[in-house]
Amino acid sequence: MQSIKILAFDVFGTVVDWHTGVMRETQALLPAIDANAFALAWRNGYVPAMAKVMSGQKPWTLIDDLHRQILDDILLDFGVSHLTEEQKIQFNKVWHRLPAWPDTVQGMLTLKQQFVLTSLSNGNIALLTHMAKNAQLPWDCILSAENFHQYKPSPATYLGVAKIFDVLPSQVLMVAAHQDDLLAAKNCGLKTAYIERPLELGHTCIKDISDNGMNDFHAKDLIDLASQLGVQLR
Amino acid sequence: MQSIKILAFDVFGTVVDWHTGVMRETQALLPAIDANAFALAWRNGYVPAMAKVMSGQKPWTLIDDLHRQILDDILLDFGVSHLTEEQKIQFNKVWHRLPAWPDTVQGMLTLKQQFVLTSLSNGNIALLTHMAKNAQLPWDCILSAENFHQYKPSPATYLGVAKIFDVLPSQVLMVAAHQDDLLAAKNCGLKTAYIERPLELGHTCIKDISDNGMNDFHAKDLIDLASQLGVQLR
Repeated sequence: MQSIKILAFDVFGTVVDWHTGVMRETQALLPAIDANAFALAWRNGYVPAMAKVMSGQKPWTLIDDLHRQILDDILLDFGVSHLTEEQKIQFNKVWHRLPAWPDTVQGMLTLKQQFVLTSLSNGNIALLTHMAKNAQLPWDCILSAENFHQYKPSPATYLGVAKIFDVLPSQVLMVAAHQDDLLAAKNCGLKTAYIERPLELGHTCIKDISDNGMNDFHAKDLIDLASQLGVQLR
Repeated sequence: MQSIKILAFDVFGTVVDWHTGVMRETQALLPAIDANAFALAWRNGYVPAMAKVMSGQKPWTLIDDLHRQILDDILLDFGVSHLTEEQKIQFNKVWHRLPAWPDTVQGMLTLKQQFVLTSLSNGNIALLTHMAKNAQLPWDCILSAENFHQYKPSPATYLGVAKIFDVLPSQVLMVAAHQDDLLAAKNCGLKTAYIERPLELGHTCIKDISDNGMNDFHAKDLIDLASQLGVQLR
């Protein structure tokens, strides 16, 4: 694995714990509703919202704006009508304030010693930048679907990372907690690392984190990945 | 100045000392030639090379590739014909290995406590990322002409920073050691900060660093800028 140069990370669920972050702020702002269900509904709106853009039904849209459209819909679904516009703007930025998983910062600092660490997220650049500041994520570079005007799993995103860094696709390791993301990366020639995040969807819905045998690495967390890649924190 | 949110930095000359970096590696690799003249010639090739792209005479080109074309030209001019292709590839990456000015890292760490720090350089994303790793530049985000497929001083670059971060142009402070860069930013509605770098061109050609009265800030270095912006290192 000497040839891997760039680690490209999925972010929501892989690097940060969106369920806990969204649930906590929902509990604080809207104590009367089911915060677990609200967090899941907000996240569930995301794939269909992107699909409308990818099919050409809607023009290119930043995730901040998709998040806001979904928020407006689910506030109605949950019977919430008392938030001011300013409260909605601030609440929508909860996605900028998600907490890192406990291993994330140490894992990244370790991996950073040997590799270039970049995000490759459907989150927009501003969202990823503010998130990194809030959670102290030590990225070397922030890349986003916004760089390519295509969301993952479009090949343009995975191949775009290799192109920007002037390396072969096989010199990029895609790191994600989602098999579909990794399969799309693998189909573009990237190496892949699966990260177990059994609690990504909270405690009411434990994820299947079994090894499907399709990836180059299957790691418990980012510290385990660093260890498997032979990097130790100095 | 409460409203400034984003600091966008010119990089070559403002954040890193390209003259010293290029001169040192030139001395080591090509001891027989005038390293000061070689460094100046390499950098002087840059504006005409970009002009060919901006006029449409050449397609969009990354700075890594422009640097290589200029290198090939000036190696001929300086009568150097013995370098291998691999040596030229490695030498061209001297621009990824430029040293920070002595105040840069502390200045950035101080400013980073209060503002989002992004590069806004004509250097490509990979170049800026490798440079940041080598010189330990603590960027929050790396933005480049490559994001916009336009070089500075195109308005698309300055306004692009404001658009990406969803702020007003007046909430972006352009930080540079070059008055032309700052004037173009000012014409787009950005705030501007001039940084004195009298030795940017080496000791044989001291730069005029006098205050032209056109900028919102005129600072000795990045630590002085932080002080003028009211930020102290915690």
